[in-house]
Amino acid sequence: MKRVYNFSAGPSMLPLPVLEKAQKEFISYGDSGMSVTEMSHRSKVYEEIIARAESDLRSLMPVPENYKVLFLQGGASMQFAQIPLNLLSAYKTGKADYINSGNFANLAIQEAKRFGDIKVVASSKDDGYSHIPDWNDADFRPDADYVYICLNNTIYGTRFTTLPKTGKVPLVADASSCILSEPIDVSQFGILYAGAQKNVAPAGVTIVLIREDLLGRALDITPKMLDYQTMATSASMYNTPPCFPIYMAGLTFEWLLQTGGLKARKKINEEKAAILYGYLDESRLFKNPVLPRDRSIMNVTFVTGSAELDDAFCKEAEKAGFVNIKGHRSVGGMRASIYNAMPAEGIAELVEFMKAFELAHA
Amino acid sequence: MKRVYNFSAGPSMLPLPVLEKAQKEFISYGDSGMSVTEMSHRSKVYEEIIARAESDLRSLMPVPENYKVLFLQGGASMQFAQIPLNLLSAYKTGKADYINSGNFANLAIQEAKRFGDIKVVASSKDDGYSHIPDWNDADFRPDADYVYICLNNTIYGTRFTTLPKTGKVPLVADASSCILSEPIDVSQFGILYAGAQKNVAPAGVTIVLIREDLLGRALDITPKMLDYQTMATSASMYNTPPCFPIYMAGLTFEWLLQTGGLKARKKINEEKAAILYGYLDESRLFKNPVLPRDRSIMNVTFVTGSAELDDAFCKEAEKAGFVNIKGHRSVGGMRASIYNAMPAEGIAELVEFMKAFELAHA
Repeated sequence: MKRVYNFSAGPSMLPLPVLEKAQKEFISYGDSGMSVTEMSHRSKVYEEIIARAESDLRSLMPVPENYKVLFLQGGASMQFAQIPLNLLSAYKTGKADYINSGNFANLAIQEAKRFGDIKVVASSKDDGYSHIPDWNDADFRPDADYVYICLNNTIYGTRFTTLPKTGKVPLVADASSCILSEPIDVSQFGILYAGAQKNVAPAGVTIVLIREDLLGRALDITPKMLDYQTMATSASMYNTPPCFPIYMAGLTFEWLLQTGGLKARKKINEEKAAILYGYLDESRLFKNPVLPRDRSIMNVTFVTGSAELDDAFCKEAEKAGFVNIKGHRSVGGMRASIYNAMPAEGIAELVEFMKAFELAHA
Repeated sequence: MKRVYNFSAGPSMLPLPVLEKAQKEFISYGDSGMSVTEMSHRSKVYEEIIARAESDLRSLMPVPENYKVLFLQGGASMQFAQIPLNLLSAYKTGKADYINSGNFANLAIQEAKRFGDIKVVASSKDDGYSHIPDWNDADFRPDADYVYICLNNTIYGTRFTTLPKTGKVPLVADASSCILSEPIDVSQFGILYAGAQKNVAPAGVTIVLIREDLLGRALDITPKMLDYQTMATSASMYNTPPCFPIYMAGLTFEWLLQTGGLKARKKINEEKAAILYGYLDESRLFKNPVLPRDRSIMNVTFVTGSAELDDAFCKEAEKAGFVNIKGHRSVGGMRASIYNAMPAEGIAELVEFMKAFELAHA
């Protein structure tokens, strides 16, 4: 079966060399005589796999020495609770400030409100999240326990291009849909985290980078498994970690290092995004609804203006091998998620297909 | 590389036909043109995979209709908190009764004590957990929210062969190291759960069977992701589930159905265990330290009585291709975990190796 161009927002395409390597050693890894899926997490061979994954991630980003790298379970949605449980200084009265730039930021806000005094400093909800809301740094409360943002908004195709200035208040960011797409200065953040299933690995592992001074502050009501300190002390091995997704994350880190690192990746990703945005800006049929300043280079949304045409496009695209291009159910339209693993040819071929569709329907 | 006999307590051996199938379709599943690791969890092709996994598990066990099947993250250790958070009728004062039959039961007790009024009704801790403690059904509090046991104790090689009679109080059981090893009457339990990495799938998914009347009772402090109701309502898809481990669990369910189901599996497992216990009972060097009544058919522990000899045995065994046979670090000695995927030949060959070692050292 020929592989398709999979524009899914997540889980999503993984680099073919990563898949091929994982397939080759799937039944017997190295000289271990067993599959990675069968390895005791306390065995030497697996300890080497997880240690190399961490060390490759550290050199790739890079991750400063005063940050722990945690490989956790539960996805970003678990972080929506885990962050307030670990960072709020008091149950119900601890303070945190959020910017509401999309559905996942909004879900994080709803969950945090159950545990603390949450202020929404800026929101683009009333504009359908078509841009990153403008905020005023002066609106952040100086006694807040943290400020929270979602760096790239998967559903709407927007991203932060500048960061809030929060002074001594730690900035916490969800980087699920942009991690490893370009260099990022980790030292700007108290916590930077990402579910792996968009740009890194199969679903089931969440990468959390946490500045060490933020450990050991969890509220009493925090389950031990959700206390970052538990996992920091045990190097993510308090209990059995999601071994196989971590192994595949390691293969992706290795692939990124071998292909020039994140500076090279940024250039490739900007060029890939430009193919699609360039066409969208001149198309008479398709439009990108996002404020140009805030355009994501990972998720590109577009609409025809007609729900019927959108629907027809998605169906024809799927038949032509461009799959999962339908927009999120909450917004409709189309969305091409073009993470690291999507080759430039996939986007170029999509644009050719869109041009033909435009000719037939505009 | 020749595959080894992997006696790891978990993660552990998976059935070779399951691994082979997963390897074959690793890069392109069916006619989807993509890897299962890349599939949107909301796609039709993945929804079929998870639905078939659930339906096969339901017919395999079987699971009664008034039970939900949940595929969760976090492992058994997350359940240690999730169970009290969901079942205790009040924070700090809700009651639950536990039997302390091993390390994991003990960890569950420690975590539950943070949330409720926990009574340990029976314990074999002072005997090094060498047997299942005797309990008196009359000691369970009639107003307890639940009674908790660990069905099979991985580290010590013991198992419950009869169940506590708890009347109307729901019985909750950790079946991580015995699920699918033999038929089990699910209707005896309010919750029956298992981390997958011993007898089912790669680490990263936890199977929770929960009677429907126990849903919707979570304490206010429960993170939304840890409320069973959240996952029951969304069929384990509130957020991205651990798609690949669930897929592999499905392959294991299919393999078990194709090889005669759990009655046939029980016969095979009892025969496999008998090979090892039979030899241990007549050996002049190796002894099984467990009360015979309580012997596990999944984890078989043994010692020589000399730490040096134990160590020498583990090293020589590893060289001979019997790997991960060292006992848990807390108890020492040896442990052969012989889950469903361990073939009888693996145990027979191990016994031959032990006989030769005995001849050389007894």
